[in-house]
Amino acid sequence: MSILVVGSVAFDTIATPSGRVTDILGGAATYFALAASYFTNVRVVAVVGDDFGSEHEAVLTRRGVDTRGIERTKGRTFRWGGQYLDNLNEAKTDFTELNVFEQFKPRIPKEYLDTQFLFLANIHPTLQADVRGEMDGVRLTGGDTMNYWITHTPKELAQTLKTVNVLLINDTETKMLAGEKNLPRAAQKVLAMGPKALVVKHGEYGATIFFREGAFGVGSRPFRAPALPIDEVKDPTGAGDSFAGGFMGFLASQEEISREVLKRALFYGGVMGSFAVERFGTERLQNLTREEIDARFQIFCELTHLG
Amino acid sequence: MSILVVGSVAFDTIATPSGRVTDILGGAATYFALAASYFTNVRVVAVVGDDFGSEHEAVLTRRGVDTRGIERTKGRTFRWGGQYLDNLNEAKTDFTELNVFEQFKPRIPKEYLDTQFLFLANIHPTLQADVRGEMDGVRLTGGDTMNYWITHTPKELAQTLKTVNVLLINDTETKMLAGEKNLPRAAQKVLAMGPKALVVKHGEYGATIFFREGAFGVGSRPFRAPALPIDEVKDPTGAGDSFAGGFMGFLASQEEISREVLKRALFYGGVMGSFAVERFGTERLQNLTREEIDARFQIFCELTHLG
Repeated sequence: MSILVVGSVAFDTIATPSGRVTDILGGAATYFALAASYFTNVRVVAVVGDDFGSEHEAVLTRRGVDTRGIERTKGRTFRWGGQYLDNLNEAKTDFTELNVFEQFKPRIPKEYLDTQFLFLANIHPTLQADVRGEMDGVRLTGGDTMNYWITHTPKELAQTLKTVNVLLINDTETKMLAGEKNLPRAAQKVLAMGPKALVVKHGEYGATIFFREGAFGVGSRPFRAPALPIDEVKDPTGAGDSFAGGFMGFLASQEEISREVLKRALFYGGVMGSFAVERFGTERLQNLTREEIDARFQIFCELTHLG
Repeated sequence: MSILVVGSVAFDTIATPSGRVTDILGGAATYFALAASYFTNVRVVAVVGDDFGSEHEAVLTRRGVDTRGIERTKGRTFRWGGQYLDNLNEAKTDFTELNVFEQFKPRIPKEYLDTQFLFLANIHPTLQADVRGEMDGVRLTGGDTMNYWITHTPKELAQTLKTVNVLLINDTETKMLAGEKNLPRAAQKVLAMGPKALVVKHGEYGATIFFREGAFGVGSRPFRAPALPIDEVKDPTGAGDSFAGGFMGFLASQEEISREVLKRALFYGGVMGSFAVERFGTERLQNLTREEIDARFQIFCELTHLG
């Protein structure tokens, strides 16, 4: 199977207690694509400037990622600068230069239209909806969003959510989107907006998947996957996108999307997030093996499973 | 087997989004004793004033708790007032009246000296150390502490920690005690202070147990238990003490304290904490059955275990 991710490719400048890096390859679509590439064929739709060189593209193509959907335009690639010096759980943004990303209008190559799985990374909800509309044959659509769209484009976001099957957001976003402080109640409200399943990412505490009653199986009991306690988080950037890549990539590798498969996907999401933070940027995601991933999956099981 | 808890008995005045209550029976020792009473014989050492009536004592004795160690003195019982109106995860203290608790000097009845398990609830570390010194035949000692003692009595606390086998504290306390922001590294520093295992309580995200290398079994891999997503948290007061009661009570019911038993205890801790918050004060903990507890234990397993 294959998965298409639509989102940002960026150059990041990051400071953490472990060090500083300047203009390294990042962006939600990049982290997602690399993480998903260990499970399935990945296609990317994004936009970059003329500073995006062949060495940057090679990071993706070396992992077998199909980059035909990455549009090159005149100008500079999206740049983000942020730091985690005081708190590894939350980035403090130093600067955002949208550059070519400001006019991003996703164009889906004809060859991508048969893709079975779709992930709408965090971009304007109207762009998400447009892409979803073009990809009318997809089996399953995953999506992300953020506080900015929840606050500034609630109507557009509501339209998009009707077409997203699995939404992956964090605790704060879930509560903000629902206008409800209690997480399980907020989750039910979000599920009523469209998604059949909601993955709430808890950062260092793992993630919970909530199901709409009867979706993907019987009942509506949530399920929790842990995060790995990590001695040294070098760089938390991209952890959530890597989580989404592992989660969606694993789904795209499966014949059937049952509740049990979604639970395993939640564990694989945690696994890919845990690798991502071990090095700056996408470094760790570039050189993994499926064996290393499955060994860590086993550690995640041992972390929460009684004998 | 039996367990002795030394700590506070109090009257609490609590406001939460679900309502308000005045002068209801609370205190760490009360929550702990009730939670542990479903697993083992519980003995209590505490102090109360002459406003502590037979109806209050009956809450404990109805659950078979041995109250001979509860000392009655002239004056009013410890009173605490707090609210969770803005944030169910953190109490805002309205008032603290130590009353008879201010002069609390734990006296262990002779009949208690053969108790095999001991829990030192959150009191002055010197009092904890005194109790631990008297109970020199115990098999396993659990303990709690708080930011106040970490800041104001670090030397006394360091002495106490040398004699505590399993310390149960939260994320903030762990990081404060270790002077280290990264949780796994902070946990290792705390374990170096004495405890063979450290249970870090994450509130609505469950708990993690960290082991000193080789303690209770091979290796030093941590283990995580979830918390139950709860639609309506009526009153979070006592959740941590109920967790400790379930955890320690289950341990005291086991022949051997292996790593596997400690993992199950972590799940039982979460189970008892989840019951506690469903009603105001100790109400829910007063009328449970072991069947209800084991049914919820099963739900906790299904919440994190892959099929």
